[in-house]
Amino acid sequence: MKKPVPSDIEIAQEANLHKIYDIAGNIGVMQEELEPYGHYKGKLSLQIMDRLAANKEGNLVLVTAINPTPAGEGKSTVTVGLGQALNKLGKRAVIAMREPSLGPTMGIKGGATGGGYSQVIPMEDINLHFTGDIHAITTANNALSAFIDNHIHQGNTLNIDQRRITWKRVVDLNDRALRQVIVGLGGPLQGVPREDGFDITVASEIMAVLCLATDLEDLKQRLGRMVIGYSFEKKPITVSDLGVAGALTMLLKDAIKPNLVQTLENTPALIHGGPFANIAHGCNSVIATKLASKLGDFVITEAGFGADLGAEKFLHIKCRAANFKPSAVVIVATIRALKMHGGQVKTELKTENVEALQLGIQNLKKHIETIQAFGLPFVVAINRFITDTEAEINWLLNWCNENNVRVALTEVWEKGGEGGVELGEQVLSAIENDSNHFNYLYDVNDSIESKINTIAKKVYGATSVEFSPSARKQMVQFEKEGWGHLPICMAKTQYSLSDDPVKLGRPENFSITIRELKASVGAGFIVALTGTVMTMPGLPKEPAALKMDVNQDGKIVGLF
Amino acid sequence: MKKPVPSDIEIAQEANLHKIYDIAGNIGVMQEELEPYGHYKGKLSLQIMDRLAANKEGNLVLVTAINPTPAGEGKSTVTVGLGQALNKLGKRAVIAMREPSLGPTMGIKGGATGGGYSQVIPMEDINLHFTGDIHAITTANNALSAFIDNHIHQGNTLNIDQRRITWKRVVDLNDRALRQVIVGLGGPLQGVPREDGFDITVASEIMAVLCLATDLEDLKQRLGRMVIGYSFEKKPITVSDLGVAGALTMLLKDAIKPNLVQTLENTPALIHGGPFANIAHGCNSVIATKLASKLGDFVITEAGFGADLGAEKFLHIKCRAANFKPSAVVIVATIRALKMHGGQVKTELKTENVEALQLGIQNLKKHIETIQAFGLPFVVAINRFITDTEAEINWLLNWCNENNVRVALTEVWEKGGEGGVELGEQVLSAIENDSNHFNYLYDVNDSIESKINTIAKKVYGATSVEFSPSARKQMVQFEKEGWGHLPICMAKTQYSLSDDPVKLGRPENFSITIRELKASVGAGFIVALTGTVMTMPGLPKEPAALKMDVNQDGKIVGLF
Repeated sequence: MKKPVPSDIEIAQEANLHKIYDIAGNIGVMQEELEPYGHYKGKLSLQIMDRLAANKEGNLVLVTAINPTPAGEGKSTVTVGLGQALNKLGKRAVIAMREPSLGPTMGIKGGATGGGYSQVIPMEDINLHFTGDIHAITTANNALSAFIDNHIHQGNTLNIDQRRITWKRVVDLNDRALRQVIVGLGGPLQGVPREDGFDITVASEIMAVLCLATDLEDLKQRLGRMVIGYSFEKKPITVSDLGVAGALTMLLKDAIKPNLVQTLENTPALIHGGPFANIAHGCNSVIATKLASKLGDFVITEAGFGADLGAEKFLHIKCRAANFKPSAVVIVATIRALKMHGGQVKTELKTENVEALQLGIQNLKKHIETIQAFGLPFVVAINRFITDTEAEINWLLNWCNENNVRVALTEVWEKGGEGGVELGEQVLSAIENDSNHFNYLYDVNDSIESKINTIAKKVYGATSVEFSPSARKQMVQFEKEGWGHLPICMAKTQYSLSDDPVKLGRPENFSITIRELKASVGAGFIVALTGTVMTMPGLPKEPAALKMDVNQDGKIVGLF
Repeated sequence: MKKPVPSDIEIAQEANLHKIYDIAGNIGVMQEELEPYGHYKGKLSLQIMDRLAANKEGNLVLVTAINPTPAGEGKSTVTVGLGQALNKLGKRAVIAMREPSLGPTMGIKGGATGGGYSQVIPMEDINLHFTGDIHAITTANNALSAFIDNHIHQGNTLNIDQRRITWKRVVDLNDRALRQVIVGLGGPLQGVPREDGFDITVASEIMAVLCLATDLEDLKQRLGRMVIGYSFEKKPITVSDLGVAGALTMLLKDAIKPNLVQTLENTPALIHGGPFANIAHGCNSVIATKLASKLGDFVITEAGFGADLGAEKFLHIKCRAANFKPSAVVIVATIRALKMHGGQVKTELKTENVEALQLGIQNLKKHIETIQAFGLPFVVAINRFITDTEAEINWLLNWCNENNVRVALTEVWEKGGEGGVELGEQVLSAIENDSNHFNYLYDVNDSIESKINTIAKKVYGATSVEFSPSARKQMVQFEKEGWGHLPICMAKTQYSLSDDPVKLGRPENFSITIRELKASVGAGFIVALTGTVMTMPGLPKEPAALKMDVNQDGKIVGLF
């Protein structure tokens, strides 16, 4: 390994890749159960699940974090590094992560394939079209839109109210000009004019559906239940009503199969599904996680944003959908983010400031309490940055020790799996020695209001919840439609425990405001929106794409 | 083979597929030059071209047709069948065809993978997402739109006139509601409002660019030259001006590699690129055709619609771009289409009518004259339908014999390669014995007006050409911009030799009206539009999708 650590793409392009058949063979996948996509990617057959039905499931380890800074705290890097570390410790570990969206890749520097010496590869492919899953979702989503508009144009026997269509079109790009559009212009031969909008594909309900489906039949049922809008009589209209659940399933028949790749140290990784962590639940697919748990003794997975959002939704939505029982949680913290939570200004994060750290620790403390409330063993992983000072690190380690909190300093970015061995040992010890009383914080049969109250108070530390008049009206409507039993998918800023992104640390005496609800009946949750939620990002003034290129050998340059 | 012939998908699902590595190995592709996509599809490395640079190119055989009926005359089926037949005759034949668009697949029964016992397989994959080429083009096209709108939103230093943006967004679907839209609504944070529209992806200039590029560097240059609109000073704005030619090339770095599949009889087939045959030139990629000609002794390829459109553009645009010299042309004719050209009404095509055939033969005669004008050997292939009568077939065979026209009755739909052996023998004989004086009908350095006149008179048989005032203005402007030397891509109805779809047979004393021109500077042609040209199809009242489904084993039903 080189010092200083080269760029992510330089490391990735020099990696010693093993053939995907070898990676698959190492975890007991048979040759005919792998569909290769090139030499280093493959899709796994869902029939493996039947073959291994009797196998015990491996230990599921969730990697989550404190509330992040805008740059992120390296949760994906720690996930990859921990997988590599466990393999170094002689354990059969499989990583299960999300697929990145092209939009942010082309827009802002950043990706979801880890970093430094803890990356999944081939990183260019994973960050670009990969095996086409997201393109298949885009196509299915927009085919549904075309079927809706065609249905109205051809006579509208379902009586769909074109003012009440909630289904939006998507592109897997950052494109603010598509947020609000009018379609169907040009006269009677071009359809019925109406307001519409485009989300980024990863915010499509179909992405959430794909990630929560347990098999192909469940996928079809969920697609059929999706509500696309309302009739003039205000009756919900579903995909089944339109008769296209089969066609949409057909478009997703390959996308539902998990993708196998490897890390820089040849640890197997399933990269599959990537729903937005605000409008959806922000975790990779249930099928990939389940398959990983049949193939590995340890599955390392992650959930979007901090523990208030990602872990809460992972535990309440994904674990509930799939009946998963996590064995342990890793809470990633960084010195620089804790200092920000303690009041250090963003431009000064590289300067030593133990006092700010002492104040900022309250943010970590709250997330620890949340994981404890779920009854799960956990380890705090301090993801070391080169700007962290000895005094800061020592103070943080001491604080953990004084509070009986398992902690490990990780240097997986700089040192790969070797830098995560201590974390790996702590995780193994937590699974073996600490008590696990995993429980949900709310019952799905509670009222929508009660479920939201529970999350806001027990997870965020809010004192109260306010509902807008329209949210109150929706609660009554949704319960009348029979959707009251669905779990809640909170949409909230990731930067604060509260719904106000500037309230850092551990805010107190605050109220959460629920502006609006959204029923994702196919995915199987009610989205509760606090503040404004971005479902279509914009590009910056100088998009990252301006630096991207391919040289004459077909080698990519400028991608990270 | 079964009788009666089962449905296309039933035949395809029962096929005896060989592993793609074996298909590749049979034509001398080395293992490391094939990237498998599943077990039965693969992408070929462009490096094969370097390795085989010294190899002689195989004989290039173009399959074209008379003016078709709305159902098509089975050109793809004959293309596949002829490839299979030549292999039966002991020749090393490789097929080079277009990739189908998902839009028509989901909309109307029909596909571009042949039919009966002459199909390329796996047909479901080829007709759905295949290896993701079209999705990559959709993404590159729409990323460019996002960069344009973002550029304007972020200060518009290029001074782009939002009223004069000619670049449109795309989806690979039939979606009439997207033909005319307004984007950028919602206030100052959502971009600049403007009129826009969506084409079907296969009508994107990027599809034409990908199909005419000779290598990755040429692809990048062509993408950079694409004109996206005009500044307030009416200066053309290119992709290079926006600085994103490299990023778009990166998005297409895999899409540029030809896809290898096989026919039902395991004949190798390269399926790559599928530009619309109206707004673009309607042939598969130059790279695939060239690669096929290095790997096979005979390359069988096709071009969209009849010889007036597809063959003319294949010969004038594609052959010129790649310096191809075809060895022979197959003109597909059907009894039913000739009867329609002779005045038989559409509902009566199954009824014997030799008189209508005698009148309709004029359409075939004109296409024969056109191929003769290009100086190429040719064979007429009568694609037999079960409703054709002996009297009709005999009359047509006699007519050919009396006029010294090579002819072969083909039954490739019913009998596979065996049904095309006679056609294969005729093609081999034409290549060996008939004279080949291939020449273009116009010089690229002629004026735009002169080039259009030549095509209209020599290929369509028109007496004159009329230009609308705006087309006249555009000719002046385009020549001023330095685009006057580009070849012409005619956009005309496929149903008639004229620009009026109801004028069947061989119309005489007609004039062609050029309504508008469009400069596809990246693709490298000037589109001349006659009448209205559809670049975004609509769905029918009962889309084919309503019947599509996947059963619990993951097997597709209802797709053809």
